[in-house]
Amino acid sequence: MTFSPLEYADRLLRTKTLMKAQGIEVLLVFDPANMNYLTGYDGWSFYVPQLIVVALAEPEPLWIGRGIDLNGARETTYVDDGNIYAYSDRYVHHDHRHPMDFVAHILRERELDNARIGLDMDSYYFSARGFEVLRRQLPHANFTDVTRLISGLRSIKSPQELEYMRQAGQIMQRVMKVALGHIEPGIRQCDAVGEIYRAQMRGTQAYGGDYPAIAPMLPTGRGTSSPHLTWTDKPFVRDEACILELAAARYHYHCPMARTVYMGSPPKRLVDAAMIVADGVQAALEAVKPGATCEAIEAAWRSVTAPRGIVKESRIGYSMGLNYPPDWGEHTMSLRPGDRSVLEPGMTFHLIPGIWMDDWGVEISESFVVTADGHELLAPFPRKLFIKP
Amino acid sequence: MTFSPLEYADRLLRTKTLMKAQGIEVLLVFDPANMNYLTGYDGWSFYVPQLIVVALAEPEPLWIGRGIDLNGARETTYVDDGNIYAYSDRYVHHDHRHPMDFVAHILRERELDNARIGLDMDSYYFSARGFEVLRRQLPHANFTDVTRLISGLRSIKSPQELEYMRQAGQIMQRVMKVALGHIEPGIRQCDAVGEIYRAQMRGTQAYGGDYPAIAPMLPTGRGTSSPHLTWTDKPFVRDEACILELAAARYHYHCPMARTVYMGSPPKRLVDAAMIVADGVQAALEAVKPGATCEAIEAAWRSVTAPRGIVKESRIGYSMGLNYPPDWGEHTMSLRPGDRSVLEPGMTFHLIPGIWMDDWGVEISESFVVTADGHELLAPFPRKLFIKP
Repeated sequence: MTFSPLEYADRLLRTKTLMKAQGIEVLLVFDPANMNYLTGYDGWSFYVPQLIVVALAEPEPLWIGRGIDLNGARETTYVDDGNIYAYSDRYVHHDHRHPMDFVAHILRERELDNARIGLDMDSYYFSARGFEVLRRQLPHANFTDVTRLISGLRSIKSPQELEYMRQAGQIMQRVMKVALGHIEPGIRQCDAVGEIYRAQMRGTQAYGGDYPAIAPMLPTGRGTSSPHLTWTDKPFVRDEACILELAAARYHYHCPMARTVYMGSPPKRLVDAAMIVADGVQAALEAVKPGATCEAIEAAWRSVTAPRGIVKESRIGYSMGLNYPPDWGEHTMSLRPGDRSVLEPGMTFHLIPGIWMDDWGVEISESFVVTADGHELLAPFPRKLFIKP
Repeated sequence: MTFSPLEYADRLLRTKTLMKAQGIEVLLVFDPANMNYLTGYDGWSFYVPQLIVVALAEPEPLWIGRGIDLNGARETTYVDDGNIYAYSDRYVHHDHRHPMDFVAHILRERELDNARIGLDMDSYYFSARGFEVLRRQLPHANFTDVTRLISGLRSIKSPQELEYMRQAGQIMQRVMKVALGHIEPGIRQCDAVGEIYRAQMRGTQAYGGDYPAIAPMLPTGRGTSSPHLTWTDKPFVRDEACILELAAARYHYHCPMARTVYMGSPPKRLVDAAMIVADGVQAALEAVKPGATCEAIEAAWRSVTAPRGIVKESRIGYSMGLNYPPDWGEHTMSLRPGDRSVLEPGMTFHLIPGIWMDDWGVEISESFVVTADGHELLAPFPRKLFIKP
């Protein structure tokens, strides 16, 4: 397994402590990153309902999923066979039967239904229909939304987690080098992306890569005005920019990085914006230390960039780490005004003050760890506009 | 855009016809494949709430999403600027504000709230919390679950859609050749996966590849008893099998394919099972024709395989085509007993009768189109157990 039995035991203990504090007796965990965090479960099976059940009354979590994934649960988790439940394929993508019917049945069977049940209500993998079924099937349950219970726990990384994120950082440096090497006028975008993916997976000699939670994003030309476009099979064109927002992952722990490259002689507005963004990133990083708030990091960025004409409405970063598609963010802390979350050693962020104008944009980002007295970059890399003459 | 204006207009018209038939006045579309199908919208932004609104009273759909994705909507859809609405980042990953608060506001502003509203209740990207917010904010709305309204429309492909799936089929053949070429004892699994991804994206000289909705799945050794495991950085080992379940995609239209490879001299049980599965696949394909039911295809498979000792409880295939992570399946028809959906020309399926035993397994699959008088394979490829001596 990816972590020691002791580390999994500690995660479970801390989860139960929080459950007690919040008056939750049974926790239903649908988020694949939270499932992995608690039990090690790992497989691309989250496209059907599956969950971990943590109950104060039970020493061990339960795994409930689809029949064909049962061996996957045995292979990747420490969960005892007696606590693994699998539903028949009859429940899969059916008009009248839903896997939550089965889940309700197991909860009743284990006498966990007449309880205060905490749920991850904003999880991608727990649908509105699933909740309706569960509510109908468990009339005695008292449901409470605890969306950030485990993802909050995840925000401070253990030494082993940080080690994996540093390994992802080493892979990320290689990935960005490969990407910058292959983005050239005349090269098809899809061919460059092929090289990017290859570098993400090959990793280093010591560490192979895993699939990041988001595909490579590389808007080009006018598309650089928008962050989330992917690629086409058209060739790159001279006198256009390309924004690369990529990540590397190690056991689903991420290190993202964004850089901007211009093919030709860049317009002054882009050169200037890149310099201001780089200065803003530096100012934000210098403000990082235990005790600082998320909004203070944003304020440090703003104090340097706003006077020079770069004003950004959206957040400039977010906590990240362990995750599965569709997002590597943890959905907890954001670097923005109003977020008074306090930084602690071991927290990890993606600082990405993307600037998107009407028909152009620039991104230069850093992934960092909060240390005892400041920050550590996960993947040091030149913080500038790259130019292909 | 990927399709002609006429094709998008036809999709919208057919959607509205179904809405009328089902008594739905306003349809909220959260599924990224459905959003793409209706408007062309394409971007990796589905990790935050976003949707298309189709109203009988409105000639054009509305796009509602996050502020930083507004330019992406302008770039990739035909939706008029006056029908594009973007919410501020203040709503993103916040404890008390939710993007659905904004969506409700727009629906009220456009006077679409006092209506019978159809919702995709089992979509990954419409959460239980999102539904709670919507219900609270729109007390006059009458909500109905119409999970399969648009995905049902999507099941019969147009000539242009089939063309993209055939292109994906051509890419898929190359991908599988590359995969089989790189799976060798001593090669790290992650390195082989790097080559697979590279081939998926490079595609052919004429057609570049897009990201498939699922990462390469390649369980090895004991892991072949489970379908959804991915890779490690360990090298492949002699006298072990590896199951490859991969896909190629073109504009998010898929052609999946599974094959099994053995490194060494394969055990008789695996050789036998592979032959029976291949025969069962052939029998199932021969049963494919317009008018046949999904369950009849499964029965044809079973009639050939069960007498020879291969019994499979889970479905042997499903409709597929256009999709985004986490699944390339359409979640409509399944090839299994009880599914009496009738095959029509232009429907596309992944026939994948995976066999997973206690500590081994085998997969040999085919992606096919239902034609006027039978079937067409999207990616013809030797249907056998591959052996690396």
